[in-house]
Amino acid sequence: MTDLPDPPYYAVIFISKLSEHTQGYETMAERMVELARSQPGFLGLESARSEVGITVSFWSDRGSIQKWRDQADHKMAQKLGRDKWYRSYDIHIARVEAHRRYRR
Amino acid sequence: MTDLPDPPYYAVIFISKLSEHTQGYETMAERMVELARSQPGFLGLESARSEVGITVSFWSDRGSIQKWRDQADHKMAQKLGRDKWYRSYDIHIARVEAHRRYRR
Repeated sequence: MTDLPDPPYYAVIFISKLSEHTQGYETMAERMVELARSQPGFLGLESARSEVGITVSFWSDRGSIQKWRDQADHKMAQKLGRDKWYRSYDIHIARVEAHRRYRR
Repeated sequence: MTDLPDPPYYAVIFISKLSEHTQGYETMAERMVELARSQPGFLGLESARSEVGITVSFWSDRGSIQKWRDQADHKMAQKLGRDKWYRSYDIHIARVEAHRRYRR
C-alpha cells in the first residue's frame, strides 16, 4: 500500500453506486487514476468495489485537491459520470490527523 | 448511502489486505460492524473489497473513535486480526471538512 508522509495530509473519500449504464466506465476510471497520479500534490490512491465503490486518494493539501477537481479532462469525466455512470456518490474531503499501520 | 450531519465530523479510513488465513474473518467483520453501529458517536459506515478492503466509518468526534478503538470486544477482534487475518493494514483518522453528494 501507499507510502505516505507523516500527517497532516488530505484524503478524498469517494463513495459511489453505479447505474445500469456502465459502458466506458472502467476505461475512464483507469484513465482518471493515471491522470490523478500525475497531478501536483498527489500522494497515493486505493480503490475497491463491492455493492458500493470506495476510492480514497491522498493529497498534500486542499489546494491540490481543488486543482484536481477543476482539471479539464477530469471535469469532463465528472460530467459523464453524473450523466451516465453513477446512480449516486458522496465525496468527503478530510484532513488526516493520525495514521497507524500494521505489516506482518 | 449514509445520511450524515453537516461537517465537521470524523472518518476512520481502514485499508487492509487479508492473509491466506481467512477462517472466521467474515463472521467477525459482520459482528464488528454491528457493534460499531451501537457505539456512541457512530454516524455511518461503508465497506468494499477488491484486491484491498476499504472500510470508512464516520463518527461525530475523535473521542468516540478512541472509545471504539478501546472497546473490549473490538480490542479482541483487533488482536485476532493482527495474529491471523490481516497481512497488512493502514488506519487514517481524518476530520471531514467538506461533503458533496450527488443523487440521480
